[in-house]
Amino acid sequence: MTVKIPVPTLRAFAQQVLRRSGLADADAATAAEVVLYADVHGFTTHGTNAMAGIYAPRLLDGRINAAARLRTVSETVSGAVLDGDRGLGLVSTVAATDLAIAKARETGVAVVAVRNSSHFGSAGYYAHRATEAGMIGIAMTNCGAQGVAPPLGGTTRMLGTNPLAAAAPAPGGAPFVLDMSATTVATGKIRAAQREGRAVPRGWLTAPDGTSVTSPDAFFAGDADVTWLGGPAATGGAKGYGLAILVDLLCGPLAGASWGPTPDLLVDGEERPDTDIGHTVLVIDPVALGAGARFGAGARELLDTLAADRPAVPGGTVTYPGAPEALRAAESLRDGVALPDHVVAQLVPLADRLAIEAPAEFAAVAVPA
Amino acid sequence: MTVKIPVPTLRAFAQQVLRRSGLADADAATAAEVVLYADVHGFTTHGTNAMAGIYAPRLLDGRINAAARLRTVSETVSGAVLDGDRGLGLVSTVAATDLAIAKARETGVAVVAVRNSSHFGSAGYYAHRATEAGMIGIAMTNCGAQGVAPPLGGTTRMLGTNPLAAAAPAPGGAPFVLDMSATTVATGKIRAAQREGRAVPRGWLTAPDGTSVTSPDAFFAGDADVTWLGGPAATGGAKGYGLAILVDLLCGPLAGASWGPTPDLLVDGEERPDTDIGHTVLVIDPVALGAGARFGAGARELLDTLAADRPAVPGGTVTYPGAPEALRAAESLRDGVALPDHVVAQLVPLADRLAIEAPAEFAAVAVPA
Repeated sequence: MTVKIPVPTLRAFAQQVLRRSGLADADAATAAEVVLYADVHGFTTHGTNAMAGIYAPRLLDGRINAAARLRTVSETVSGAVLDGDRGLGLVSTVAATDLAIAKARETGVAVVAVRNSSHFGSAGYYAHRATEAGMIGIAMTNCGAQGVAPPLGGTTRMLGTNPLAAAAPAPGGAPFVLDMSATTVATGKIRAAQREGRAVPRGWLTAPDGTSVTSPDAFFAGDADVTWLGGPAATGGAKGYGLAILVDLLCGPLAGASWGPTPDLLVDGEERPDTDIGHTVLVIDPVALGAGARFGAGARELLDTLAADRPAVPGGTVTYPGAPEALRAAESLRDGVALPDHVVAQLVPLADRLAIEAPAEFAAVAVPA
Repeated sequence: MTVKIPVPTLRAFAQQVLRRSGLADADAATAAEVVLYADVHGFTTHGTNAMAGIYAPRLLDGRINAAARLRTVSETVSGAVLDGDRGLGLVSTVAATDLAIAKARETGVAVVAVRNSSHFGSAGYYAHRATEAGMIGIAMTNCGAQGVAPPLGGTTRMLGTNPLAAAAPAPGGAPFVLDMSATTVATGKIRAAQREGRAVPRGWLTAPDGTSVTSPDAFFAGDADVTWLGGPAATGGAKGYGLAILVDLLCGPLAGASWGPTPDLLVDGEERPDTDIGHTVLVIDPVALGAGARFGAGARELLDTLAADRPAVPGGTVTYPGAPEALRAAESLRDGVALPDHVVAQLVPLADRLAIEAPAEFAAVAVPA
């Protein structure tokens, strides 16, 4: 079940939660936009759900530094490495994206890496932000030293899901926005299946001997691992695994942040730190590179041609990454954001804890005492 | 069956073939290195096999311009768009890579796109070339207006396999080199199965109704399509499909080259032109960005930690993209390149046609008259 919350109401609520959790007004407003992007576009695991489960509690207990001051470690005309001062990834990565956009406008391309950061929410937000400046954006994060998935054919969970987003402007319609993890699915989808008592589709989880597992409990018990994009080696699993390594290299050693396969941290049974996460944003400005309006017009034609293809199955749909999410965003703006009950059930006690008045719509959800 | 050819012998032969096909000496030497890279590292579809099947015949009949002069269309301090003058992709992309390396050394990151080009061989070569300069390299190509795979859930083959390679230096061992197509497999592997009368693994091919197909003939007859990395939508197929779109956007509209989903070219049953292929190379210099030796040392540790993991299956192996290929290259240098008989069977008549003496080792293969 879901509850519909008007976008302005949810935005005001998120801003208030983040301010009361310790962020300065401007940072709270910035972070709330990233949170809203996720909920508005249907990425419900990464919106107010993450705010309630990760951002607010960690800002409050100091694991995320609410008073962080972003520092420039090194800088060139087209690039920079920033230190996030243990702050909220949503705030540091918006700054990193805007810096990359400004640099790309001058030189055609820019890369900005952030170390010493935390969870950055929806990777697609930053890539999409570049498209609003007419640019191509690529954004990625590692998961610090957290281990979620073992190397292909291995046993020790030492790599994150390592999300990667890429977006391109295509004026006249929805932009291209690819937002993917390097694993077959992000762990939030396995958790959702567990919460709802559903089996997961074949192909998401694998036992060490390679057999497919459909019980989400097996993942959380450590009896099955999430597969790499592509599945087993025979169907391209080395590609998803390789993309995860690429993201870890660009967010860990390049930024100077932690990374998954860190020998010192491979301690069985202990929670591994997730405080020193790294992010990298890459922006390309087609106009600065001399492509002028050709890029946007070409992208529009390319995407429209794909979406106009005849479906393989009668009644099926052909689309492209970014288009369904843009439809969902239009719906959210018109009808309100559809927040799942289990998210509301986390937001209500959070509002209580912070002495904030929750949106009236939350009352429709029965919250366990 | 394979024949072992010493690397210097194969190099000299490839150079001679490319010169006799019309390339100037310097261009023939450059292109031969890209060809050799593929054969030496075990990517046999993209080495002398492609030279015999694509480069030499098209240079000879003029579809690829042997006398091409690369032209700068636009240039910034960190980027450029080049026009390949209908020349060989191997030559233009080496130049693009070297330009990107030089620019990245100054500014930390650079992107160079090439239009009006042709098949560029092994994407990994260009990414790997950046690692030899101590840099991170990303190289990609679209397939011009050729259609190989339909959009996810669609019916018209309008996207290429759109290869993407990424490599990072890791001094003290094999670099990271990911070389992947956006489809589950490149079409060369389907062709190899057909040639050898083998079924392909489940998951490579799909019928329009979504059932898995294992006959390679079905692909060439148009009855089954190659799947996107991730397979069907439930296991992440939208990610492989999205990566293919990303590559097409960066190589087509950005470079000013053709791209797959071009409405005018969607003519059933006609061969679509592949002459205006685009490539894009992106290079990041960790040293210029201020990461100093941290990047290489971190990358080494990260890769070694992955490869040292305990295998899930007794006797199994854990490795990372680039490591098996480096072992194969060392073997090739020591024992000679293992060229499959069917490749030699193409090279022998090519040598005859060009009045070149073929390596003596080729005599071991019976070539049909």
